[in-house]
Amino acid sequence: MQEWAEKASVLIEALPYIQRFAGKTMVIKYGGSAMGGPFEQVILDIIWLKQAGIRPVVVHGGGKEISSFLQRLQVESRFVDGLRVTDGETMNAVEMVLGGSINKRIAATFYKNGAAAVGLTGVDGGLLKVRQKRQDLGQVGEVVSVNHDFLDQLLNAGVVPVIAPIGVDENGVRYNVNADSAAGAIAGALHAEKLVLLTDVPGIMRDTANGKQILNQVTPKQIQQLIEEGQITGGMVPKVEACLQALQAGAKHVHILNGEEPHALLLEVFTDKGIGTMVIGGNPNE
Amino acid sequence: MQEWAEKASVLIEALPYIQRFAGKTMVIKYGGSAMGGPFEQVILDIIWLKQAGIRPVVVHGGGKEISSFLQRLQVESRFVDGLRVTDGETMNAVEMVLGGSINKRIAATFYKNGAAAVGLTGVDGGLLKVRQKRQDLGQVGEVVSVNHDFLDQLLNAGVVPVIAPIGVDENGVRYNVNADSAAGAIAGALHAEKLVLLTDVPGIMRDTANGKQILNQVTPKQIQQLIEEGQITGGMVPKVEACLQALQAGAKHVHILNGEEPHALLLEVFTDKGIGTMVIGGNPNE
Amino acid sequence: MQEWAEKASVLIEALPYIQRFAGKTMVIKYGGSAMGGPFEQVILDIIWLKQAGIRPVVVHGGGKEISSFLQRLQVESRFVDGLRVTDGETMNAVEMVLGGSINKRIAATFYKNGAAAVGLTGVDGGLLKVRQKRQDLGQVGEVVSVNHDFLDQLLNAGVVPVIAPIGVDENGVRYNVNADSAAGAIAGALHAEKLVLLTDVPGIMRDTANGKQILNQVTPKQIQQLIEEGQITGGMVPKVEACLQALQAGAKHVHILNGEEPHALLLEVFTDKGIGTMVIGGNPNE
Amino acid sequence: MQEWAEKASVLIEALPYIQRFAGKTMVIKYGGSAMGGPFEQVILDIIWLKQAGIRPVVVHGGGKEISSFLQRLQVESRFVDGLRVTDGETMNAVEMVLGGSINKRIAATFYKNGAAAVGLTGVDGGLLKVRQKRQDLGQVGEVVSVNHDFLDQLLNAGVVPVIAPIGVDENGVRYNVNADSAAGAIAGALHAEKLVLLTDVPGIMRDTANGKQILNQVTPKQIQQLIEEGQITGGMVPKVEACLQALQAGAKHVHILNGEEPHALLLEVFTDKGIGTMVIGGNPNE
Amino acid sequence: MQEWAEKASVLIEALPYIQRFAGKTMVIKYGGSAMGGPFEQVILDIIWLKQAGIRPVVVHGGGKEISSFLQRLQVESRFVDGLRVTDGETMNAVEMVLGGSINKRIAATFYKNGAAAVGLTGVDGGLLKVRQKRQDLGQVGEVVSVNHDFLDQLLNAGVVPVIAPIGVDENGVRYNVNADSAAGAIAGALHAEKLVLLTDVPGIMRDTANGKQILNQVTPKQIQQLIEEGQITGGMVPKVEACLQALQAGAKHVHILNGEEPHALLLEVFTDKGIGTMVIGGNPNE
Amino acid sequence: MQEWAEKASVLIEALPYIQRFAGKTMVIKYGGSAMGGPFEQVILDIIWLKQAGIRPVVVHGGGKEISSFLQRLQVESRFVDGLRVTDGETMNAVEMVLGGSINKRIAATFYKNGAAAVGLTGVDGGLLKVRQKRQDLGQVGEVVSVNHDFLDQLLNAGVVPVIAPIGVDENGVRYNVNADSAAGAIAGALHAEKLVLLTDVPGIMRDTANGKQILNQVTPKQIQQLIEEGQITGGMVPKVEACLQALQAGAKHVHILNGEEPHALLLEVFTDKGIGTMVIGGNPNE
Repeated sequence: MQEWAEKASVLIEALPYIQRFAGKTMVIKYGGSAMGGPFEQVILDIIWLKQAGIRPVVVHGGGKEISSFLQRLQVESRFVDGLRVTDGETMNAVEMVLGGSINKRIAATFYKNGAAAVGLTGVDGGLLKVRQKRQDLGQVGEVVSVNHDFLDQLLNAGVVPVIAPIGVDENGVRYNVNADSAAGAIAGALHAEKLVLLTDVPGIMRDTANGKQILNQVTPKQIQQLIEEGQITGGMVPKVEACLQALQAGAKHVHILNGEEPHALLLEVFTDKGIGTMVIGGNPNE
Repeated sequence: MQEWAEKASVLIEALPYIQRFAGKTMVIKYGGSAMGGPFEQVILDIIWLKQAGIRPVVVHGGGKEISSFLQRLQVESRFVDGLRVTDGETMNAVEMVLGGSINKRIAATFYKNGAAAVGLTGVDGGLLKVRQKRQDLGQVGEVVSVNHDFLDQLLNAGVVPVIAPIGVDENGVRYNVNADSAAGAIAGALHAEKLVLLTDVPGIMRDTANGKQILNQVTPKQIQQLIEEGQITGGMVPKVEACLQALQAGAKHVHILNGEEPHALLLEVFTDKGIGTMVIGGNPNE
Repeated sequence: MQEWAEKASVLIEALPYIQRFAGKTMVIKYGGSAMGGPFEQVILDIIWLKQAGIRPVVVHGGGKEISSFLQRLQVESRFVDGLRVTDGETMNAVEMVLGGSINKRIAATFYKNGAAAVGLTGVDGGLLKVRQKRQDLGQVGEVVSVNHDFLDQLLNAGVVPVIAPIGVDENGVRYNVNADSAAGAIAGALHAEKLVLLTDVPGIMRDTANGKQILNQVTPKQIQQLIEEGQITGGMVPKVEACLQALQAGAKHVHILNGEEPHALLLEVFTDKGIGTMVIGGNPNE
Repeated sequence: MQEWAEKASVLIEALPYIQRFAGKTMVIKYGGSAMGGPFEQVILDIIWLKQAGIRPVVVHGGGKEISSFLQRLQVESRFVDGLRVTDGETMNAVEMVLGGSINKRIAATFYKNGAAAVGLTGVDGGLLKVRQKRQDLGQVGEVVSVNHDFLDQLLNAGVVPVIAPIGVDENGVRYNVNADSAAGAIAGALHAEKLVLLTDVPGIMRDTANGKQILNQVTPKQIQQLIEEGQITGGMVPKVEACLQALQAGAKHVHILNGEEPHALLLEVFTDKGIGTMVIGGNPNE
Repeated sequence: MQEWAEKASVLIEALPYIQRFAGKTMVIKYGGSAMGGPFEQVILDIIWLKQAGIRPVVVHGGGKEISSFLQRLQVESRFVDGLRVTDGETMNAVEMVLGGSINKRIAATFYKNGAAAVGLTGVDGGLLKVRQKRQDLGQVGEVVSVNHDFLDQLLNAGVVPVIAPIGVDENGVRYNVNADSAAGAIAGALHAEKLVLLTDVPGIMRDTANGKQILNQVTPKQIQQLIEEGQITGGMVPKVEACLQALQAGAKHVHILNGEEPHALLLEVFTDKGIGTMVIGGNPNE
Repeated sequence: MQEWAEKASVLIEALPYIQRFAGKTMVIKYGGSAMGGPFEQVILDIIWLKQAGIRPVVVHGGGKEISSFLQRLQVESRFVDGLRVTDGETMNAVEMVLGGSINKRIAATFYKNGAAAVGLTGVDGGLLKVRQKRQDLGQVGEVVSVNHDFLDQLLNAGVVPVIAPIGVDENGVRYNVNADSAAGAIAGALHAEKLVLLTDVPGIMRDTANGKQILNQVTPKQIQQLIEEGQITGGMVPKVEACLQALQAGAKHVHILNGEEPHALLLEVFTDKGIGTMVIGGNPNE
């Protein structure tokens, strides 16, 4: 009996957070690297958010699966400046892996656990209108606009949008889009309360006298300083850039969490235990 | 960190229950005797239900407070067959205590904890239309009809109705109504998923060779047998009669819980730990 | 037959007024002192307004009943600057009399005459958010904000809100609020077409060579002059201050009528016979 | 002051009637013969009904004006069995007088008095679908169906439909329809609370020992008896047949009033002074 | 088969135009002079617009029919500055011809071809509020305001408004309005995508060395120049003035077409074959 | 000019068909074999339907592409009774080709041509709930239920659903579904006006003395006879079985057309030139 009463206290402890976030929109970028972690648990966490009145939107990645699929097709992967060169054949493979395989696996896991989800790419409903980013990269795109009305309709219908980061231009040509950027653009366009990046690192790190330390809170301005100081490097740079763009476009806050940690999402949202790094919204030039 | 992950698991453990009950209506009768227990905790439990998508309706009692108030006014309390004889002066006192004092104390506790509640008596919106029960009891009424459309409007507006068991007849005369009966009539009229009676006993008890034992589940038919066998007696008789009426009028299930036990309501609804007695809906003659 | 035709002409005579005010909101402050007059007739007048398409909101007082009830409870009434010092026990009595007794008597009279009304205090739906006015007065509050959305929902549902002037702070503590101020704040928040104060005097009076004379129309500026000249004194001062606040907050016009006169309300609204004093909206500094 | 208070009492006297009929539909057939009476007063009465929450629909006649217009055009009027033989030229004249002249005069009188009305013939919105009644009568039609959805849309938009009794067949050909029949068909299709025939006689009369006497209430069965006994004759026969059809099709009650009497409509609806003849709904064979 | 495939290609050829104009409002002024052409074909064209998602509003003229009707009535037609002097008798004739005869003929032709239309004059719903234009012309009016909300309601209900150019003042007096001006005012008030004037000339003409030539596109500024140069004269002057007013009031473009040419309306809207003259919206002073 | 007028006549010729089908639902099964034909033209035809007020739903196949993709992956295709044995690897390939590649190619072609489409598999929104058909076939499913509410929401939002025939069971496992069956189940669940099977044959053929002849109309009963007579064989058998199921479940009519013929869809719907075979709805046992 004692044990059960303690369980009930945990529920009550979450109440103020539930009240604060009910009705708010959260965009969760579920990175391909984080998918190595507790996959179904992450989906359950998102269903929890939904049942508590939050409006979740999922954007997923899948870089690793694309690479291994291309390998199987004996198509060579080429990268320029860390970005995949995407010719027609590669793009078709991207569409099959992201839009066909991963996207539907996620939607099916929602369905299995009693929640309605709809797997989409940016083609559907003209969700992500893009333009070519750089000519030498082929079909790599950057987001021009987001059809947020369509997302709102789905959210109002009680459905979780699950979005593969593929965009379309006015000629119907599809483009590979960086998943962080896509999530950032969507969070901005929806004026989301939170953009959460579920990745495989615990947050933004800084070298200190005592070794690497995680930053609990940073402002956009501090991020730019950290980039300049060379503290933020490699794959984290495009990630934080997506964060800054989301904030500028209208998102309130961004969180970078380790998606492999059990229930990272619930802990961040519904308990006092803030984890990972939170980028506080505001003018990035201040 | 370990501790936090366990907390998150508790939330996830509640998920299937939340999914099952979201959108359903629950009528909670919060008895005057149960109010001696953890008052604000009970309100928090109800707010939890609401945040999880349940539509709670509260009906409260207050017999003890009425008696002590009448004493203070030096008005003698008279009872016939366990029912308070209610003359005009007594009725006015009932209206002041139930409709003025207790009702607003509950509504204010909701407000303090971030939830909108509206304190009502059966007069408001013509909520409880009653007729006189017996002439010798004065203004003691029994429910003729419930304005469930008005309750639906409030519930759809996200408001918790908090109802004092006072009814009105077509001449605008007010009547004292037994709180269990009022809750039962309301649960029936709303075709509630659950009617929960929060009282000061752990459930329906039965004498066995090993002493008194709580019954976890009973059918309406078994209840009638228990009454005939004299196992259900005293104040429990009108309580179970209200249960049976609620089930006949359209409520699905009824629960009798000890409201003084911490989080009895949450435990009953959101965990595997069923407590108290559950009366399973169905034809009471079977 | 002649007589009936004349009756029909009276209805037609009211038509232009009905057309002018249909769909408009009117806040009627029904003062405790005016309740000595034709109680049920006043309610019938308000129901008439409602049937003619007006959206009435009732705010009632009850000072005399509070005093006599406190006397019965042998609680001493203390006043500072004409305001009741309100300790916890007094506040509980206020809640019982205003929120329990008078409020429900009014709602029941509406019900008896075929109109749906809902008796509320400022606690319900967080209707009147207040703060403490002066520390030495105890639980005496002044209105910080009005939940006008909730009132609009009730009005749209065809229900007459009947409001006891009790407010609530963010801790759920209740406060006694001056009924004129409460009515003024509500009329302002609803941008009411009219605030009508039903009181026991015929309007704002002025000393003239021919003795006291009623003022038919005054501007806010003239009121301030009259206060400075000492022509408006005593209980009329807080009353006109409530008028001025209502006008500043968005009400169009204020009327001060003698509620003991038969059908004062209907006469004011639906005939050429303007009675009492009308305070014409506009910048009080002009 | 006394006089004004009496006026207010008249308003209050009408209250129960207003409450009873608010939201109900009334079809008023305003006969050409009745138009010789107080024209604008009748319109004002109808506006009164509308402001009191009733949904009025007006169907008008105009036989006399058609005849004098045809005379002016030197077109001969021919009648068979009391019905106007309607060739193409006559039909065009009917459309001009009913649909152009009278219809718009009524609509304009509503507009002048602050109420929105829309003048229609049965062509508009396919309101009255008809078929030819008898070949020898030319373009004389009988109603096949009423587009009651379109009327509901107009009534919901707060507009008074004013309908000239002209119907249309599937080839777009227009037909002259008896105004009583058209009103009866419309009242039936709308399941109107009342069909009121404003005519130039005081009601259904019966010969008695004391001369002609008006019948205050009759049942459909009694009407059939009166026809058989030859007590109802001439122009009253098609009128009562329209009444019976309206009742069979779904109207609740029918009233036959003298529209020339001042405020006959208001007296009938809003006072205790029932005038004219009321045909009580029910199975006409009983 | 080949023939059918070509027919299908024509449908597909129209697709981009349908997509561009779907949901847009078009006001079509169907002039009395154009009615000599293929009457039913014009109505079918308008029904086509409606089925393709366009919201058509029809304003019709009828000068010739009025004149011949007045002649038949032996009422003399008088003109001052090309405008009909309209005394009471003339106005009644105008109302009969425009509001009764032509208006219902058009509505009936819609009905016959499966589309719901509603014939109205400016009286109905207070559609066209006017004032007297010049005292010496009698009941000749100019539009003061358009009840566009009422038109929107009809359009949303899927009904085609067919409007006779008659206006009403606040006293319910009706006025003859120039049909081009009425159409222009309506197009402006609805912020129509297009105002199309179906007339009996091919467009705005200009004298050139090679004789009269049609102008395919003109700006408002060019029109004013053409008036000053005397190239636009006679009946075309009020027509282009109506165009300019419509553009200033909010219409996007105006077209002047020869309504006698088969399917002029469809050709203009749904093919590459622009015909007649298009007046391009924009500031007329530029 | 003559040419343009003829084009306009073609549009008008289509008008009665447009009027008849506006607001109706049509399910178009676009077979993999038909995709060899004029792909973009078919999409344009469907957009035409949509612009004309029809509610189109597209279900596509893709058997050939799946086979060639499996070949590329060096996965052997095995068939039992003409049905593909679908192990986990094959199913993943099916999901990639149907859900990722073909589905999004179709959606993008809609987008390019100005129409909003949403590519879905039966996983999304729990659209196609299935169960395993036969154990020896692995993940081959048959439809248990269709989430028609979700399709209605998309259609009401003006979006064309494009559905790959993949279903899901309650465990989130995906199954390959025959595209004809899926289309039939969807058409039945939506009570579609038409189910159109775009295939690569001209319709249902019958051997006659003069060789093979196409059947223009057949009843369900005749189809069963033709199957028994061995006139319908091979791949046409499951196709006609899907037709019969659709009709039984609530679809009105089924059409089998050669999708490689230019504008087959438009010809069938919008001209007098009925092509292919129409299966007339009705009890298949009659």
